Amino acid sequence: MVALNLVNRPNKRKQAPDQVSELTTNRLSVYLRCLNELDASGVQTISSQSLAERFHLNAAQIRKDLAYFGEFGVRGVGYYVKELRRHLRQILGLDRHLRVAIMGAGNLGLALADYPGFRQEGFEIAALFDAANEKIGHESRGGVPIHDIKELKRVVRRERLDIAVIAVPAQHAQPVVDQVVAAGVKAILNFSPGALKVPADVKLKSVDLTVSLESLSFYLAQGDQAGD
Amino acid sequence: MVALNLVNRPNKRKQAPDQVSELTTNRLSVYLRCLNELDASGVQTISSQSLAERFHLNAAQIRKDLAYFGEFGVRGVGYYVKELRRHLRQILGLDRHLRVAIMGAGNLGLALADYPGFRQEGFEIAALFDAANEKIGHESRGGVPIHDIKELKRVVRRERLDIAVIAVPAQHAQPVVDQVVAAGVKAILNFSPGALKVPADVKLKSVDLTVSLESLSFYLAQGDQAGD
Repeated sequence: MVALNLVNRPNKRKQAPDQVSELTTNRLSVYLRCLNELDASGVQTISSQSLAERFHLNAAQIRKDLAYFGEFGVRGVGYYVKELRRHLRQILGLDRHLRVAIMGAGNLGLALADYPGFRQEGFEIAALFDAANEKIGHESRGGVPIHDIKELKRVVRRERLDIAVIAVPAQHAQPVVDQVVAAGVKAILNFSPGALKVPADVKLKSVDLTVSLESLSFYLAQGDQAGD
Repeated sequence: MVALNLVNRPNKRKQAPDQVSELTTNRLSVYLRCLNELDASGVQTISSQSLAERFHLNAAQIRKDLAYFGEFGVRGVGYYVKELRRHLRQILGLDRHLRVAIMGAGNLGLALADYPGFRQEGFEIAALFDAANEKIGHESRGGVPIHDIKELKRVVRRERLDIAVIAVPAQHAQPVVDQVVAAGVKAILNFSPGALKVPADVKLKSVDLTVSLESLSFYLAQGDQAGD
């Protein structure tokens, strides 16, 4: 007999965040994106096998990743798309509507402030910060206000900002990170090249856009070899 | 007796590009970034173990990834930093100075055109394209010229552009991708949300910036649970 697990509750494990690797959370994000797409196209249930085939993922890896957080699959059915989507959003903390500050109102900062994907997943881009007088007091095309970086501490507290995104030129990155940390922000997403230092209780994640270009470069190099 | 392999030649394997997963090439990019840093700080050799510890990687995974492309390690020494760096650049096709077009001269396109990481790794951002008359003929702060998208085919041929980066609003993404494909570009990096279609002989890679924010969100959610 097979016990059907219809409740699908996430395990209430209390782990240190470092016990789950960033690669795992990145995969959860990818699964969530797939489920969003399935949900939007009206799919109600899906097996790990079909999920894997449809989105070029690894079925065993999907089962392993999800099993770590609870029993979400139902034998003979697979996953309920809406259910699993809701659970993943909860595991990733996306049900909390985190509020994001963007440091630097240059091209990158303004682009990120209005990046549609962030809002879709429940992030609220609440503030831009810059040091340039001609920018302060204005807003992004999407309506995100640009504050004076001198007001950082006050605005972080007033607007309850959870995450800071670093979009300033490389030479300003460390001083800006120091200000963000001093203002009490505990999670930082960095787009600036080069290594940055933060205290142990602050999570810093750096995005290296070059990595994506390099995988295309690899593809082109291999293609040429194959055609020799 | 241990045979020292001092030549360290990459294997001349001719594989279809799909046999090496994107996760592998992404890891190679990460290793390369680490080696750049080691090289810059004067480190000459490093073991997979120290490389793993220093950059929070997995030593067995490093050995496995590198072994796939050749015999780069020397027993009792580890890897020669400069040598391995050169090999990785070669494997990733970075010794070929690929030429990149950016589609869309909005905030994101202009930010990407002047993103310092690209040039550092040998990518040449050679052209921006836009449809807005007031932008055409101007250039980015870093000096990348903005062309009329109507000139795409001609400029791709003349400038020998290898990769196109899609930085246009979501609703324009598919028509712009179609134009890029028609112009003969075989590798596309997409920053626009939503699914895009390309022919089988074109490689499309999409960057989802939301994934990075979600791993921070996960960290914050877990931190709060741990503190319950």
